[in-house]
Amino acid sequence: MREVFNLEPEQVPTSWYNILADLPVEVPPSRPAPPRNNGQAPLRPQLPLSMYRPSIGRKRFVPIPEPVRAEYQRWRPTPLYRASRLEKALDTPAHIYFKYEGTSPSGSHKINTALAQAYYYGQSGVKEMVTGTGAGQWGSALAMACHPYGMECTVFMVRSSYRQKPYRGTLMRLNGAKVFTSPSEETEVGRAALRADPDSPGSLGIANAEAIEYANDRKEARFSIGSGENHVLMHQTVIGEEALLQMELAGEFPDVVIGAMGAGSNFAGITFPFYRAAQTENPATRFLAVEPDACPKMTRGSYLMDHTDYSGVTPAVKMYTLGHTFMAYHIHAGGLRYHGAAPIVSAMYHHDLVEAISYGQNRVFESGAAFAKAEGLVPAPESAHAVAAAIDEAVKAREERKKRVILFGLSGHGLLDLSAYESYLSGETVDVVPTDEEIQKSLRPLLEPT
Amino acid sequence: MREVFNLEPEQVPTSWYNILADLPVEVPPSRPAPPRNNGQAPLRPQLPLSMYRPSIGRKRFVPIPEPVRAEYQRWRPTPLYRASRLEKALDTPAHIYFKYEGTSPSGSHKINTALAQAYYYGQSGVKEMVTGTGAGQWGSALAMACHPYGMECTVFMVRSSYRQKPYRGTLMRLNGAKVFTSPSEETEVGRAALRADPDSPGSLGIANAEAIEYANDRKEARFSIGSGENHVLMHQTVIGEEALLQMELAGEFPDVVIGAMGAGSNFAGITFPFYRAAQTENPATRFLAVEPDACPKMTRGSYLMDHTDYSGVTPAVKMYTLGHTFMAYHIHAGGLRYHGAAPIVSAMYHHDLVEAISYGQNRVFESGAAFAKAEGLVPAPESAHAVAAAIDEAVKAREERKKRVILFGLSGHGLLDLSAYESYLSGETVDVVPTDEEIQKSLRPLLEPT
Repeated sequence: MREVFNLEPEQVPTSWYNILADLPVEVPPSRPAPPRNNGQAPLRPQLPLSMYRPSIGRKRFVPIPEPVRAEYQRWRPTPLYRASRLEKALDTPAHIYFKYEGTSPSGSHKINTALAQAYYYGQSGVKEMVTGTGAGQWGSALAMACHPYGMECTVFMVRSSYRQKPYRGTLMRLNGAKVFTSPSEETEVGRAALRADPDSPGSLGIANAEAIEYANDRKEARFSIGSGENHVLMHQTVIGEEALLQMELAGEFPDVVIGAMGAGSNFAGITFPFYRAAQTENPATRFLAVEPDACPKMTRGSYLMDHTDYSGVTPAVKMYTLGHTFMAYHIHAGGLRYHGAAPIVSAMYHHDLVEAISYGQNRVFESGAAFAKAEGLVPAPESAHAVAAAIDEAVKAREERKKRVILFGLSGHGLLDLSAYESYLSGETVDVVPTDEEIQKSLRPLLEPT
Repeated sequence: MREVFNLEPEQVPTSWYNILADLPVEVPPSRPAPPRNNGQAPLRPQLPLSMYRPSIGRKRFVPIPEPVRAEYQRWRPTPLYRASRLEKALDTPAHIYFKYEGTSPSGSHKINTALAQAYYYGQSGVKEMVTGTGAGQWGSALAMACHPYGMECTVFMVRSSYRQKPYRGTLMRLNGAKVFTSPSEETEVGRAALRADPDSPGSLGIANAEAIEYANDRKEARFSIGSGENHVLMHQTVIGEEALLQMELAGEFPDVVIGAMGAGSNFAGITFPFYRAAQTENPATRFLAVEPDACPKMTRGSYLMDHTDYSGVTPAVKMYTLGHTFMAYHIHAGGLRYHGAAPIVSAMYHHDLVEAISYGQNRVFESGAAFAKAEGLVPAPESAHAVAAAIDEAVKAREERKKRVILFGLSGHGLLDLSAYESYLSGETVDVVPTDEEIQKSLRPLLEPT
């Protein structure tokens, strides 16, 4: 049985896919950033228009600039595998496929958008990219992406993740980036967070707010974000476009496409092209977003106008959110500790075009370890969320005695997360779930009239 | 300029290359294992004949069993890159190419032979593979390789490496292996080493001696070795055979081929096929083995009959060695702390068919960091030895104002070695070099008449 489906470098997509061209539902427009009354400089637009415009338009295919595509071809197309050993271990009639982004230089899908952004920002004259990062996958991807274009890179990394994964910081520095732990003393937002709680573990919201402030204070610097925004989702569609061709090689079309859900770019990357193709190939195909119990924005959040950053200086967007001040408990999958879901994914979820499910982290690591033993690849804790859902789908197929074609996105390897697996294997990993009261507390301010 | 040279899965070699068919020099035969007079069971042959025989014969090409080749095709062919950004950073007229084995499931070249060995052992009825590992790359490769064939895997890992890289142990356990730190209490060899020095950092020689004893005491277990032996070198030639085709795509033939030198399988893998091709393509091509100052078996050792294991129970082979009781100082490149050079490589070195050079570890990490910054890939500390030599060759080309085509093997990524890079970046990495007296001490017993 064939287990690997490879494409030629020439088959790296020449265009990104803009799902707005095909969505039957409205994605509400964003609300301009609020005026700043704390004496800080007004927030400049941070996005190059050449990158931003196509991501809010209705053109279906957006050409990938040749220098970006040439970078992609250094490791893309990534492989798609049939997980036949996992199928055997589960004794399931399901066919399980996964698209593997762990072969990228940064070890995850994040570099797909990092390279695109570095290119567009560089073209518009920016000399320094500034960002926030949770688990560090985004930060290391951006650090790597800046170098080919001769740009500087500055990263605010969530403190709890930095402590637990110091080597992500090493990796960023090896790639020439400047790294601050967040909350930091570098910005007003960071200093305020430290005054409120000197031991603050930080959050992606705070790290991004720090990066925004830091970039806003420097003439040739701009803030860059690794997920959630339309353009980021669009850049990641190279994953699904390749996977479409590869599933064609396999001669099957998925009944369900599964992706882990942080802010949504990984999920969008693997699912959006299949959403388009499903209209003709298999309208019953389901799209399943998997989030952690600790940060259940879709399964327990509300569909509201909210900010993407902790301090509320960014334009508000309509999304499933736990509130931009929500502070998720620490989990190993730091990349999924973000309070909101991308506006496009949120609109699709609101109109039942996608489904969502959440898992506790012990179940996630159990699935990740089972997958590693069967397939010889260790998934990042974030990606292991998708593995857990794929295993559940395969078990359901076994119970129903029906074939089911399952495709999931394995967004990155877990070689920098082995300490998390060690903690799980030693029985030290705790399941953490916010109470309704905790969620309501951060949502309440959003429900009040402004 | 084209920077990536990819091949199709169909271009994974169908045969391994046996350099004995083409060598103009003699590789002296091994001397049978000495009788054991300590009351232990006599040492059984550990190698399946189906694997061993072709590796001492004169047949040039040995067909790769189809199940092994199918496993290779899960990630092979591996990419070959032109390091044009490193060339630019060095301002050199040299063309630098590297063959990258870091995309394998185990993150290094080791799995090429691990899969072949697991296959042959399994075919001959073995149920448990036992081995010693230094830096852990070999142990994790063997753990991954055993699973597809339903075999158990037991690993003795050098204690100093285990302490510094605990996550290699996690990786092996995730792949279902049993892991002991060596010296251990599990074997007589281990207990003796602990009696002599309770704080012994261990060595690959001791770990292998423990694995041999452990396997010898169990009916369905056999010892497997990750480097040095003829068959291991042969399995690794898939690297060089692919690289030959890829250099053809690039339209160049190397003036020098460089590989890091532990016991020799990585070096052989990248160089042997080029040795064959050079006879017609470019007889002046040089082959350069790079070892650490801390374990200079080629540059400072002697060409003598010696054992491959610490306790001297294995057959003796003629090789460049520091003596099987040589205890190298700790360095981060644990995979290169082996006392001897493979018999084939040793014979070639003795007859000036290959060259050797050694570097201190600060120079090695400086080179690894420069490479990472330029190319976005972090080399394992072992592989960074080859990077250091490639940089030296490129600098010489600049000084001579002459083009030079350099190819080196990047045998694995350094994502599990970021703590070592952190130590280097913090200025905490120390260069350690054995004295002449230390080397003579472990060589002396070999010079005495037996």
